[in-house]
Amino acid sequence: VNTRGKHPDLIVQQQHPFNAEPTLTQLLQAPTTPNDLFFARNHAPVPAVDVDSYRLSVTGLVEKPLELSLDDVYRLPKTTVTATLQCAGNRRKAVFAYKHVVGEVPWGDQAISNAVWGGVRLSAVLERAGVLEGAQHVACLGLDELGQGDKRFNFGGSIPLKKARCEEVLLAYEMNGAPLLPLHGFPLRLVAPGYIGARSVKWLVQICVQQTPSSNHYQARAYKLFAPHIDAKTVDWDKGLMLGEMSVNSSICVPEEGETLASGKLEIKGYAITGGDRTVERVEVSLDGGLRWVEARLSRVEPFAWCFWTVRLDLEPGTHCVVARAWDSAANTQPEDLAKIWNFKGYMNNAWPRVAFDVGPAVRADKRPG
Amino acid sequence: VNTRGKHPDLIVQQQHPFNAEPTLTQLLQAPTTPNDLFFARNHAPVPAVDVDSYRLSVTGLVEKPLELSLDDVYRLPKTTVTATLQCAGNRRKAVFAYKHVVGEVPWGDQAISNAVWGGVRLSAVLERAGVLEGAQHVACLGLDELGQGDKRFNFGGSIPLKKARCEEVLLAYEMNGAPLLPLHGFPLRLVAPGYIGARSVKWLVQICVQQTPSSNHYQARAYKLFAPHIDAKTVDWDKGLMLGEMSVNSSICVPEEGETLASGKLEIKGYAITGGDRTVERVEVSLDGGLRWVEARLSRVEPFAWCFWTVRLDLEPGTHCVVARAWDSAANTQPEDLAKIWNFKGYMNNAWPRVAFDVGPAVRADKRPG
Repeated sequence: VNTRGKHPDLIVQQQHPFNAEPTLTQLLQAPTTPNDLFFARNHAPVPAVDVDSYRLSVTGLVEKPLELSLDDVYRLPKTTVTATLQCAGNRRKAVFAYKHVVGEVPWGDQAISNAVWGGVRLSAVLERAGVLEGAQHVACLGLDELGQGDKRFNFGGSIPLKKARCEEVLLAYEMNGAPLLPLHGFPLRLVAPGYIGARSVKWLVQICVQQTPSSNHYQARAYKLFAPHIDAKTVDWDKGLMLGEMSVNSSICVPEEGETLASGKLEIKGYAITGGDRTVERVEVSLDGGLRWVEARLSRVEPFAWCFWTVRLDLEPGTHCVVARAWDSAANTQPEDLAKIWNFKGYMNNAWPRVAFDVGPAVRADKRPG
Repeated sequence: VNTRGKHPDLIVQQQHPFNAEPTLTQLLQAPTTPNDLFFARNHAPVPAVDVDSYRLSVTGLVEKPLELSLDDVYRLPKTTVTATLQCAGNRRKAVFAYKHVVGEVPWGDQAISNAVWGGVRLSAVLERAGVLEGAQHVACLGLDELGQGDKRFNFGGSIPLKKARCEEVLLAYEMNGAPLLPLHGFPLRLVAPGYIGARSVKWLVQICVQQTPSSNHYQARAYKLFAPHIDAKTVDWDKGLMLGEMSVNSSICVPEEGETLASGKLEIKGYAITGGDRTVERVEVSLDGGLRWVEARLSRVEPFAWCFWTVRLDLEPGTHCVVARAWDSAANTQPEDLAKIWNFKGYMNNAWPRVAFDVGPAVRADKRPG
């Protein structure tokens, strides 16, 4: 397993392939996640890439198909975009707690991270190739291989052409100023800000401009949202929502479930995110199940990136249960009750986060550090 | 009051200025609302327009300011867009029922209608004028006048430049193939699909390309979403969400509250809508408060337009309470409980609609009509 450059304290959900998330504490250390703490979501082993023979092919509904070497890519104008990637299965552990989900990675609230991506605009590459009439989607293929024998295939997915032409969509070769780690898609990764992480295809080897969404397993079957009454036995894989833009979501990271805090002024903290090019508008917390709300202070708000939020409260000793919710610029907010949005793949859990914690007796002033 | 061309059975919420919505039955007659039934939301009397001297000015951060006569506009390429307009105050009556909202029109679920708009693309006009560096918003002004004496001003609002450049944004002069009625903005109305109705400025007289959103009262103060704990006494008008893209929403139109239906197969019907360029993905109804859901059949789904939904159910005699919720392509869904999203202006009520109705004994087959 190539986990070079990753922090040893990551919570490893799976070794083969490597799936890991930072701890809640690590996650909140900085709005830009250090590369060694960035969550890793993989469906197959990290592929070996020979940088000299590597070519990115641009094909399909284009005037002039391209075969780009890495040097060809590096010669295009470089730009950077701050974007948060979030796995569609983020916050699935809470889904499990309500009703078990079979065969899926039990992510905590940390299958999400934020980085400054450096690379070239996908739109620049599409312009060079010349998109033809009738094109509607841009399908991407990675070098990572799944399946066995005759049924081997590469990971893939697609985004609408309209999105692909937006300036925030990159072919990234840098993450926070450093070359992409092999685990994160070296030498080239699509970064589709505002979309579920799976659409940011790693080890990118082919871009195909086409009329329909990708027929790849991970676009056509996996990463689909089904209604609560559908399960593995009744599912019709041709139906369901092909996940794309993210919904509005938030998490409470401090305190953690069951933690005991000293009474007096204490801080409740977390992150909030939304999808498309929408922005987080407001985050609120409630200590009475949603009847009264307190507005949180937000860190810098911008499209494509999460924001961190903080509420300072004075609480009496005892057990408290805090819930949170975010609102976005389209006036969407989170659904209250996980039980009512449960789905058998455990995707897109954006129900209000809930954390129960204890407040102990006050720490005497002379006992407080510093 | 110029209500020429409007249906006499509209529910008139206010005569001066004229504010009216169709009945639930009228609303569901056809996915394209006839012009005489289209809801009317006005803040001032319908202005008189002299079509010969009328000019639309395009000004602000542009290379070449324009003064366009109606003939100039008519000479530009004509296009049509199907778009649903929804007032930000739609479904406010339910908000009133929970807690009263002062000084606002008590719209039912029918401050929404759908039309095929004919006109020219705003982007075509912006291209002619040549948008300059630094431009971020497009502010529109109508001919309708508000206030008194020194404080007279015109109705206005703005949309982001990025949206203004999208092909769905029109300067419309036709509604369902007929010239715009005076009540609906003759001779020219901005149509900003996916945005709250207030941004589709009627009697359009000025387009100003600028760095900031419009400072007009109806952009900078009214049509803002505040948190539930804010009221008229505590509000800071500089804060709050300047409403733009609509959130995901739905309504139950059949049966109506308190109606008695014959038992046997009965139909529950309504509409669903979402904002931006997202599409309605799914509508579900529940008869047990949201524990079990039944998926509705949807009419044609496309961006910028509502869809109608239908569920056929076999229900026992007695009282039933049905709730509904829509999901959109960004996996957003409606919040459950109005009490928890209440805001003092009564905007953007997208809580689950709830209708209580009775099912009577079955009608004997030989007594059924036809």
